[in-house]
Amino acid sequence: MKFEIMRHRLIDGLNDVMKAISSKTTMPILTGIKIEVTEEGLRLTGSDSDITIQTLIKVEENGEQVIRVIEEGSIVVQARMFNEIVRKLPTNDVEIEVNEQFKTHIRSGKSEFHINGFDASEYPLLPEIQDDRQFSMPADLLKSIVRETVFAISTSESRPILTGVHWQVKNGELICVATDSHRLARRKTTLEQMPEGEYSVVIPGKSLTELSKIIGDSSVPVHIVMTNQQVLFKTSDVSFYSRLIEGTYPDTSRLIPNEFNTNVTIDGKALFQAIDRASLLAREERNNIVRFTSLEGNVVEISSSSAEIGKVEEEIQTTLIEGEELKVSFSAKYMMDALKAVGGQDVMVKFTGSMRPFIINSVHDDAVLQLIVPVRT
Amino acid sequence: MKFEIMRHRLIDGLNDVMKAISSKTTMPILTGIKIEVTEEGLRLTGSDSDITIQTLIKVEENGEQVIRVIEEGSIVVQARMFNEIVRKLPTNDVEIEVNEQFKTHIRSGKSEFHINGFDASEYPLLPEIQDDRQFSMPADLLKSIVRETVFAISTSESRPILTGVHWQVKNGELICVATDSHRLARRKTTLEQMPEGEYSVVIPGKSLTELSKIIGDSSVPVHIVMTNQQVLFKTSDVSFYSRLIEGTYPDTSRLIPNEFNTNVTIDGKALFQAIDRASLLAREERNNIVRFTSLEGNVVEISSSSAEIGKVEEEIQTTLIEGEELKVSFSAKYMMDALKAVGGQDVMVKFTGSMRPFIINSVHDDAVLQLIVPVRT
Repeated sequence: MKFEIMRHRLIDGLNDVMKAISSKTTMPILTGIKIEVTEEGLRLTGSDSDITIQTLIKVEENGEQVIRVIEEGSIVVQARMFNEIVRKLPTNDVEIEVNEQFKTHIRSGKSEFHINGFDASEYPLLPEIQDDRQFSMPADLLKSIVRETVFAISTSESRPILTGVHWQVKNGELICVATDSHRLARRKTTLEQMPEGEYSVVIPGKSLTELSKIIGDSSVPVHIVMTNQQVLFKTSDVSFYSRLIEGTYPDTSRLIPNEFNTNVTIDGKALFQAIDRASLLAREERNNIVRFTSLEGNVVEISSSSAEIGKVEEEIQTTLIEGEELKVSFSAKYMMDALKAVGGQDVMVKFTGSMRPFIINSVHDDAVLQLIVPVRT
Repeated sequence: MKFEIMRHRLIDGLNDVMKAISSKTTMPILTGIKIEVTEEGLRLTGSDSDITIQTLIKVEENGEQVIRVIEEGSIVVQARMFNEIVRKLPTNDVEIEVNEQFKTHIRSGKSEFHINGFDASEYPLLPEIQDDRQFSMPADLLKSIVRETVFAISTSESRPILTGVHWQVKNGELICVATDSHRLARRKTTLEQMPEGEYSVVIPGKSLTELSKIIGDSSVPVHIVMTNQQVLFKTSDVSFYSRLIEGTYPDTSRLIPNEFNTNVTIDGKALFQAIDRASLLAREERNNIVRFTSLEGNVVEISSSSAEIGKVEEEIQTTLIEGEELKVSFSAKYMMDALKAVGGQDVMVKFTGSMRPFIINSVHDDAVLQLIVPVRT
């Protein structure tokens, strides 16, 4: 194997695949990056066995020659070290050559590295993916969907299924749900050209978070292929594979109330900031709990107190309070997470008494729905 | 005590004094900030008993009223909490009022905090400072002096005196020296209006690092007052006190060689980058050691190797190599620290054989001198 490449493009490719590399892997070969050179270009693969990221740097891009392939071949090099070496090379011209003992020579300017590589045939193969359950959406929409749901997964391994986000394709709609059993986030999306039939997968939250970091904020399409064990997110130059979580996701539709006793229409940003302030004292206590009290004249009071430190109160003028008087306590963090996910200015907070789950959504639609279980105080 | 203040100025003041606050203090009152309001303005004091920072926010600044004093007084409030509350208040107008039980009310917009304060008379008094050993220098020069020396202090508590920087006033010159016994940094500065006589102090490295963070990069004068137990750095609005380290600093002048066998004149930046690259492999081994070898034609080779990972070699064209051939090994980190401190383009590296300490300084002067002890390989 021997090729020359422009350093800045090699760095771009490494930026993508390095996100899959973990130092805590149990398979030593996965501390490495697989480098394959063909007529087409340079393919880099990184994996922690849960996530696999593959990127292709083409020989020519926009009429500019990026890679000169002298001899095809493949090698695995220690990922962290290779990444740091490439970043620090003195010139933009890099030559990489592998000889028969997997010795890898990296040359740039007057700098010459000789590092020990590993046999690429020992690197795990990518999962086989059939293309039958496939749809696509713009990258920025995909990022939104992840941002609006993934924070609500459980971080506890006691119910592994809840550490993932449930993606369900049904009646031409994609419904994504995450819950840790104290709160729930749901995002509904209608997409064109959804495949026939109903099916669903549970994608590890960590995979979705990593995916978000490598896809851009553009509207370029991302192709999504679901199989029984794996999901693949694919753009023109990056393929992102994730394992799925096995098991049956709980039916969460019954948890979401349909009838409400108190509806509050409020500026979501003002509510967020008041809770953020109240949380300063609340989080010194055990549960970071704030109180939400409806007052006369469409006013809501946010308050919290800590025996040791003191107390805080703040009134917010709402747009409208409909229905019964209400006093409810909940986790400041859950409410702030929910308001961030709903976004926008005006939100509806809908209650069914002070001890039943309540929901938050935009006044315009319920594409993003957030549910929080109150706490007793 | 009661006053109103513009929030952004209070935040500026907190930014300064918070740098002295440590959560690891053994005196509970030092987890607090002392707030004193007088006709003159608002004085904030923070301390971890090693460092004390005091800042004064004047009632009026540039013709603008910053503070309205309604009632003079003082209080101590829990520093971290108070700092976070002030940062998150909804408006730029802040009212603070203390009643007889040290209860502190903070009002801004419709937000109202009631926090428990502490008796300001329990806060330690500032050290008394006599003004006899006083001189001054521009803030940016002070920052340079710290940057060029403080990295070379010892981080081990086995010889506490070496965890400080030795500041010596002698013959109208300020000489600052730091050493961990494997390398040494020395900075000489000639200042106008130095006080008569010889005296010296040892300032904790940590204090100097914190000082660097709060003084700006401007040329405003910083007044420096040395006493037996404390040193004070004072600008128009901030006073920074540090304890001194007791004991006698070793005489380091004898360590610095005067005669050399090999003198290398070289581009400091090129040398830095080559060592940075070689260090990638070197630091996988125990000591992060690189080799420096003089070759024919004014060329130097930087190299290192790791049995497990591989090796790296790089040639650098120097300006001139005078004297004997040389092969020497040293810590990549020490050399990179030294080159950063010397700065500039062209540096001299002067050796007395491969096992004796060697020095690095600018080709223009030796105001900044760096010394490194080589290692056997």
